[in-house]
Amino acid sequence: MLGRINTTAAVARSLRLRSARLQPQFARVRAMSQLVEPREPSVVTSKIPGPASLASLKHLSAMQDTRAAAFVGDYEKSVGNYIVDADGNQLLDMYCQIASIPVGYNNAAILAAARSDQMATALANRPALGVYPSADWPQLLEDSLLRVRPAGLDMVFTSAHGSDANEIAYKAAFIHYARMRRSSGVFSAAELESVMDNRPPGSPNVAILSFSSGFHGRTFGALSTTRSKALHKMDIPAFPWPRAPFPQLRYPLDKYAEENAQEEKRCLAETEEILRSNPVPIAAVIVEPIQSEGGDRQASPDFFRGLRRITREHGVLLIVDEVQTGCAATGSFWAHEQWALDSPPDMVTFSKKMQAAGFYHTKELVPDQPYRNFNTWMGDVPRTLLTRAIVAEVLDKDLISQVRSTGSYLVSHLKPLSIRYHRLVSNVRGQGTFLAFDCPTPEIRAELLHLMRLEGVNMGGSGEASVRFRPMLTLTSAHVNVFVSRFESVLNKMYQKY
Amino acid sequence: MLGRINTTAAVARSLRLRSARLQPQFARVRAMSQLVEPREPSVVTSKIPGPASLASLKHLSAMQDTRAAAFVGDYEKSVGNYIVDADGNQLLDMYCQIASIPVGYNNAAILAAARSDQMATALANRPALGVYPSADWPQLLEDSLLRVRPAGLDMVFTSAHGSDANEIAYKAAFIHYARMRRSSGVFSAAELESVMDNRPPGSPNVAILSFSSGFHGRTFGALSTTRSKALHKMDIPAFPWPRAPFPQLRYPLDKYAEENAQEEKRCLAETEEILRSNPVPIAAVIVEPIQSEGGDRQASPDFFRGLRRITREHGVLLIVDEVQTGCAATGSFWAHEQWALDSPPDMVTFSKKMQAAGFYHTKELVPDQPYRNFNTWMGDVPRTLLTRAIVAEVLDKDLISQVRSTGSYLVSHLKPLSIRYHRLVSNVRGQGTFLAFDCPTPEIRAELLHLMRLEGVNMGGSGEASVRFRPMLTLTSAHVNVFVSRFESVLNKMYQKY
Repeated sequence: MLGRINTTAAVARSLRLRSARLQPQFARVRAMSQLVEPREPSVVTSKIPGPASLASLKHLSAMQDTRAAAFVGDYEKSVGNYIVDADGNQLLDMYCQIASIPVGYNNAAILAAARSDQMATALANRPALGVYPSADWPQLLEDSLLRVRPAGLDMVFTSAHGSDANEIAYKAAFIHYARMRRSSGVFSAAELESVMDNRPPGSPNVAILSFSSGFHGRTFGALSTTRSKALHKMDIPAFPWPRAPFPQLRYPLDKYAEENAQEEKRCLAETEEILRSNPVPIAAVIVEPIQSEGGDRQASPDFFRGLRRITREHGVLLIVDEVQTGCAATGSFWAHEQWALDSPPDMVTFSKKMQAAGFYHTKELVPDQPYRNFNTWMGDVPRTLLTRAIVAEVLDKDLISQVRSTGSYLVSHLKPLSIRYHRLVSNVRGQGTFLAFDCPTPEIRAELLHLMRLEGVNMGGSGEASVRFRPMLTLTSAHVNVFVSRFESVLNKMYQKY
Repeated sequence: MLGRINTTAAVARSLRLRSARLQPQFARVRAMSQLVEPREPSVVTSKIPGPASLASLKHLSAMQDTRAAAFVGDYEKSVGNYIVDADGNQLLDMYCQIASIPVGYNNAAILAAARSDQMATALANRPALGVYPSADWPQLLEDSLLRVRPAGLDMVFTSAHGSDANEIAYKAAFIHYARMRRSSGVFSAAELESVMDNRPPGSPNVAILSFSSGFHGRTFGALSTTRSKALHKMDIPAFPWPRAPFPQLRYPLDKYAEENAQEEKRCLAETEEILRSNPVPIAAVIVEPIQSEGGDRQASPDFFRGLRRITREHGVLLIVDEVQTGCAATGSFWAHEQWALDSPPDMVTFSKKMQAAGFYHTKELVPDQPYRNFNTWMGDVPRTLLTRAIVAEVLDKDLISQVRSTGSYLVSHLKPLSIRYHRLVSNVRGQGTFLAFDCPTPEIRAELLHLMRLEGVNMGGSGEASVRFRPMLTLTSAHVNVFVSRFESVLNKMYQKY
């Protein structure tokens, strides 16, 4: 495939070069805002990573571990749904930095936010928001995170990334749990003494309940609730917190409706039994609307309504981890909106495509004293400025509708392909463009991802042998057509073999 | 004090307004780069927080807990060593966003980095650095974090903030600990099964040893090593990890030399006993060069050399937490440089003034497989762009020498004041401008901080009743003169009373 040059891209590149000569001072700024999405992928090296990526990774490997690197990105040239690598390969990106780029590379509105004076001030003067918040912070929160707050949750605790969003939510849950049981409102001498030695009653034995195959992050508290893969957890001490079974549905859903309903009922009953009788009391349950790292495992709205019901009945908080599902990818801004709960979750955590991270919560979850759930920065103003622009893009351009229609269009291709190539593709599932299918083995999945990349489509896996779609919210049916043609070509090649 | 207007500031403000009218398009940019530090503080409200701060906090309190807020910052107008609040008060800032602003508000070099095209690209296209690093990342690391790497530590793991820098360092320590003991190099069936249930042997009982009064962050792993205050830890489950005694030195150091040496010897002996016989084996020891949140507690280079010796003898890693002490404030770029160790620490963690966060380490601490110490973003390119500018400012302007001379000058005033006002100020101590003194009670400390703020100097406390100096690295003797005049005035007022 070496030497295969996409003409459109070559012309675009030459145009950019010409424009760059005009006004050297603003050359790069102009070049970026003039970037146009290629009409189709272009792969110009025989392997990915190509020689330029490899040279860059070699340089980097003296300073950081590079063994997980797929290729090196050229983010000045990446545009819209296309990531460009250091070798000039232009790949349709269906993985998007592990599901974390919302509205396209070098999106004009995001770049404008990045170049604003407000951004420069926020970067150059990072405030300790808990002590010296900036004057523009309240309005910024209103125009960004609060603009899309989940119904029933009026407050937001801002943090740095998904793991600590979850961890800080757990701390809020534990502080709340203790307050509900501390009639006096003051700490006892025994608590004050034992807590400095990490012993009960000050540091109590209380748990967060999570689900098999769930992923909630990598720091010690988050990792104690993560149950995705042994490699994520091995050799790291963990809290003795329990796990509940997550439903393993069979596809297609309509064919196995009754069996799946039974499976969900069984999982709910086991979950309730843990809430009732776990030796360590449970302060909160955390759940993903779609288990993402764990293999794109799903459950029905009925299951989640049941989970809300039993957590409420047992006085246990419900935390919905929308780090990967949030920000419109499932066809609603928050995936849990599709459950039609009759009372909201107690906390909803977010990060990734939102760029800012944290969790929404009710007033009841503010601790009884200040400084208890606290840290130096308490959030990230620059990322929240990006969130404001992202939320505006999503709402003003009605990208939620676009995600729904593009997702349906993609599914309408995936389902027939999963019949035609059933030895390679099964269990097509998902919501919006947050879709997935299974390969028969991890090795076949690896080969498929590898061949797709050489065909110009960057994709990612999840779980043991699943392929996950995590495109931008700006994906259109035209991109789907590009994807499908490359996908069919790869499936054809592979089908001869398996 | 209401109505007290600083003439210089008023003139500067009017000049800025005039300049703003000239070219509306670039008004704010110009205004920022034309900011000039006031010659002295100016307090125009009778209380701080003043009415504008209070109105902003009221707005914010519907969305976030504001009980820890001191006042609201106007970061467009803050300049150099002066923070300006929402009411127009101009305060000499000796606390600097909990020790996290390195080279002054709206520093021209930092603003230039914030406004660069490279910054805009990095913000608008946040990469998952572990999988798709950006082409400019290796050179950026060389020009920023690697430019000031501690001797002996050639690699750097980048993260988001101090807590997770420490947590990820702990994970590296635990993975290393297990590898040293796993002769086969492969995970056993028992490990693979138990780890998903958070049980040994997969999730082993291994510990990080930390010191009494130490502070290492607020997430669950970090918090299990934090021993600063009960309020930081209460109601949060913690790992059963031990704590060692940290020396409690007596001041002045020369008077109590022998007694202090004995105290350090005792603490080292107890630490070694824990390394030898703790029921849970210890993978690493973490220590701050100066315990900061815990009350500016110090130990001698001898103590730290002893700690390095015993950790090495017991095959235990040594992590130096330079989150607060790092970046030149103690008069060397890293505080631990002053210990003259004969072999380097195994890891050094950083955040705060560095703006980027993470830890330096040796090649030996890279896990045996990729994806083990991993997360979505694996660092923060925009903050590392700021780090490059910060490091250049520090090195090119030789701010380390300035910190040393300004620190000596400040101490030369504090020591006589601690004699003259000995009922209020004692135990003057520290290195560089990383200084502190003790007040007799928490209440007197609170009153002193309150009065200093009304005199136009923003300061912070640490520990039970200490006052800590955490000024910018750009503090000069002229600023010290301003501080000393206000400080004397406050001490005079208070001395009548106590």
